[in-house]
Amino acid sequence: MKIIADLCVIPLGIGVSVSAEIAVCERILHEAGLKTSLHAYGTNIEGEWDEVFAAVKRCHEALHAQGVPRISSNMRFGTRIDREQNMEDKVRSVEEKLQER
Amino acid sequence: MKIIADLCVIPLGIGVSVSAEIAVCERILHEAGLKTSLHAYGTNIEGEWDEVFAAVKRCHEALHAQGVPRISSNMRFGTRIDREQNMEDKVRSVEEKLQER
Amino acid sequence: MKIIADLCVIPLGIGVSVSAEIAVCERILHEAGLKTSLHAYGTNIEGEWDEVFAAVKRCHEALHAQGVPRISSNMRFGTRIDREQNMEDKVRSVEEKLQER
Amino acid sequence: MKIIADLCVIPLGIGVSVSAEIAVCERILHEAGLKTSLHAYGTNIEGEWDEVFAAVKRCHEALHAQGVPRISSNMRFGTRIDREQNMEDKVRSVEEKLQER
Repeated sequence: MKIIADLCVIPLGIGVSVSAEIAVCERILHEAGLKTSLHAYGTNIEGEWDEVFAAVKRCHEALHAQGVPRISSNMRFGTRIDREQNMEDKVRSVEEKLQER
Repeated sequence: MKIIADLCVIPLGIGVSVSAEIAVCERILHEAGLKTSLHAYGTNIEGEWDEVFAAVKRCHEALHAQGVPRISSNMRFGTRIDREQNMEDKVRSVEEKLQER
Repeated sequence: MKIIADLCVIPLGIGVSVSAEIAVCERILHEAGLKTSLHAYGTNIEGEWDEVFAAVKRCHEALHAQGVPRISSNMRFGTRIDREQNMEDKVRSVEEKLQER
Repeated sequence: MKIIADLCVIPLGIGVSVSAEIAVCERILHEAGLKTSLHAYGTNIEGEWDEVFAAVKRCHEALHAQGVPRISSNMRFGTRIDREQNMEDKVRSVEEKLQER
């Protein structure tokens, strides 16, 4: 089962700056071979369900292993069986509608 | 790794009423032996990481198997290594602060 | 326009414990006269759109005023025009489906 | 109070395809003069608190006005008082960390 997801990891107890921890997660997602796209409030991820969630688990494990005491993540994830769709399709589909007017 | 999570499953393409599909997910979470608490905009879930996400996957699989064409879920999930905490602790901790004033 | 919402406020830069800050938000929501229900990963809120979001804004303002440097909230909010529905209806509707089997 | 947000609008009761409705929201956000960036699972938004949430309200109102019976949105929104930050800063900050290794 393929999913398109969007992950936002929020490390707590390490101060206001969290970009180093987000970078750790980005590396883990890339090393997992997942298609990703970083944006200003999370990361788009496309892949097989098990691979995506295994990588998300490694993100939490890696941050805790380097001392982050608490993590509160939030994630959107979508699956569909009516047709195949990738991340680019989703954006393109909206952009086409925007140009129609 | 234990997590406390909150899951909101949104089935698409089946009309405005989605309570029957949420009930299917509730049964799956209960059958997985997870501690859960249904509220007006999701379900609190407490358990081991792998068991929680395996059950969430079964929710998507079960809804698709009964014909739901598309699902867009969103989920919060927290882990911590500084101390143990369960769902009741989290609520009690806030309620204690509310009574202090 | 009435909404049913679920708010999760995450204060950053104040350490791992955030229950005192959540309690501040709870008081603000109550003082706004909104119907709320605290759970283990957020707070259900029911009310008029403008009143709900005005109260959420006051939560951010109050936490910053007491020194919280950064806040990352996430919120679900639903509106519908097909029929009236309150927080209890949503839970009851799922529970009825659970008892049907 | 400035916020950086990420909005995901999910129209219910109109079938599986929702890109036309997302395009309506995109137009509303642009017409509001907000800085936005569409991605595969939502839209980044940067602006003043009141302007951002007024535009989000217009998205719900516009979709209901054209017949969408139910909408379930979810949104992340962050505020900070320790320093100024825009959407590009957030992405750049992570990318710099990724190149450090």
